[in-house]
Amino acid sequence: MNKLAVVALGGNAILRGDQEGTIEQQEQNSRDTLSNLIYLIEEGYDIIISHGNGPQVGNILMRNDAGEEMYNIAQMPLDVCVADSQGGIGYMLEKELRNLLKDKGIDKEVITIVTQVVVDKNDPAFQNPTKRVGKIYNGKQAEKLKKDKGWEFKSSPKMEDGWRRVVPSPKPIRVLNEKVIEQLVRQGIIVITVGGGGVPVYIDENNHIRPSEAVIDKDLASAVIGAKLKADELYILTDVPYVYLNYNTPEQQKLELLNKEEIEKYIADGVFGEGNMSPKIKACLSFVENGGKKAVITEATKLSDKKYGTKIVLK
Amino acid sequence: MNKLAVVALGGNAILRGDQEGTIEQQEQNSRDTLSNLIYLIEEGYDIIISHGNGPQVGNILMRNDAGEEMYNIAQMPLDVCVADSQGGIGYMLEKELRNLLKDKGIDKEVITIVTQVVVDKNDPAFQNPTKRVGKIYNGKQAEKLKKDKGWEFKSSPKMEDGWRRVVPSPKPIRVLNEKVIEQLVRQGIIVITVGGGGVPVYIDENNHIRPSEAVIDKDLASAVIGAKLKADELYILTDVPYVYLNYNTPEQQKLELLNKEEIEKYIADGVFGEGNMSPKIKACLSFVENGGKKAVITEATKLSDKKYGTKIVLK
Repeated sequence: MNKLAVVALGGNAILRGDQEGTIEQQEQNSRDTLSNLIYLIEEGYDIIISHGNGPQVGNILMRNDAGEEMYNIAQMPLDVCVADSQGGIGYMLEKELRNLLKDKGIDKEVITIVTQVVVDKNDPAFQNPTKRVGKIYNGKQAEKLKKDKGWEFKSSPKMEDGWRRVVPSPKPIRVLNEKVIEQLVRQGIIVITVGGGGVPVYIDENNHIRPSEAVIDKDLASAVIGAKLKADELYILTDVPYVYLNYNTPEQQKLELLNKEEIEKYIADGVFGEGNMSPKIKACLSFVENGGKKAVITEATKLSDKKYGTKIVLK
Repeated sequence: MNKLAVVALGGNAILRGDQEGTIEQQEQNSRDTLSNLIYLIEEGYDIIISHGNGPQVGNILMRNDAGEEMYNIAQMPLDVCVADSQGGIGYMLEKELRNLLKDKGIDKEVITIVTQVVVDKNDPAFQNPTKRVGKIYNGKQAEKLKKDKGWEFKSSPKMEDGWRRVVPSPKPIRVLNEKVIEQLVRQGIIVITVGGGGVPVYIDENNHIRPSEAVIDKDLASAVIGAKLKADELYILTDVPYVYLNYNTPEQQKLELLNKEEIEKYIADGVFGEGNMSPKIKACLSFVENGGKKAVITEATKLSDKKYGTKIVLK
């Protein structure tokens, strides 16, 4: 059996924060990132690709808002917006990857699956929504949306009297299509799945699938599908080549290798800071704790250069 | 080998023209339509589901417009909007179908594939865009969009000085994931694919996949995948239980059986009128001409009642 790698593309591997977000920019960034995956394919890995959707679903939510405001079009709930983003981003990644494979003379199928991920409806995250999504509202608008739609808000540091909707970020438990994904990827088909962390759903008391107004961390979802399919390696692609201690301070220090014991100590000491790195490190740890051999956090365009990246192992 | 049926859900099988388009309405309509498929599953058919996306992609395009107007968010091109709609609609259909199967105690997997469909870039349709999409603009706005984005417009009968963007509707040639779809459906997995007719792409002189600013008729795309996979039957679900001669006139006459010779004569005589029925009949004819045994046009909620429907056969 081939080695199996799960590669999680960060939001900025597709759309950087300093870009307006045109499709040309997204396509170019996708090509730059995906061209780094070719070496894994040439080394004989089976590959699952997951991706973030932060900027894209943010835009979809704002367009939803604008469409209701200007044209009175019914807004779609968050689960449908996440599914929309899986369609658009997945299509673009598949198209660009197929073209790159063609250029390299590699004959491989690519498939994009619209993917639901099951969460626990009793996950404590539902009592404490923390993930900011969509546009910045003023206090009056936020008050009305809270009343009309039951949305929860937290203040935005970016604007006075600015408020953003917050939604829960529950833990992913299981990918609905895991068996099909396994079968396809083990035939050598490249599978694009759990986009944006997956469309969050829960199973109700009648064994029905119900949509969940939440978002799932895409790195955690990638770790879950990776562990379930006994993947060997998890790659989390982001905008820095290493995990650092005391990032962006005079004491900044890059880390090339991290094990469980070190991670737990560093997290207790708070040296990874807030922000995006802690969830990535936790996703890597969860992957190696559940049978994965190695997880790597590295810069999107440096995946193929093995001298970069922080490797995370169990011990 | 089981019999294979392709079931194409019309736009109004998901969202009726007289509805505002809330997600609750779309979910309820989807359940009403999908519950009719259970009998095919119980009779042992393998099943491919395709679906329209007219109202949904129309809303996505209008939200795109509103998002640019209100928040200066870069608009996504039509191909990405179609892919978005495949994500959102496919997710909803898969969720509702999984729940219906659960209620019936049927243990079957369902998978939703984001699907690209290849068209010929020299298709004459590109010289004559006919398919109206998105919002109604006034003459001044249309003029500006024509200049800025190269969009083409036709006047809208619904509004004085009203103009709608028109895009080409080229013929589908090939579904990119046809091999994977065949493999999955022949294992008994229900596959949701070619949503909205598929994301239209063409193959350029460098053998690269390129996006096409067009829309593909979903019934024709369903006939193409059906014929390629040697499906036995094609079901096109719409809002009337039969094809009629002289529909909505005093001479209206329902048709229960149609063969190629009759269809060609009736089409030459123009008795199916303009509108939506002719393309459906042509899709059915193309299916039976390419090896399909039988195609049926019937009302979305009457699929399981065999006394309804117009059957189309070769002779």
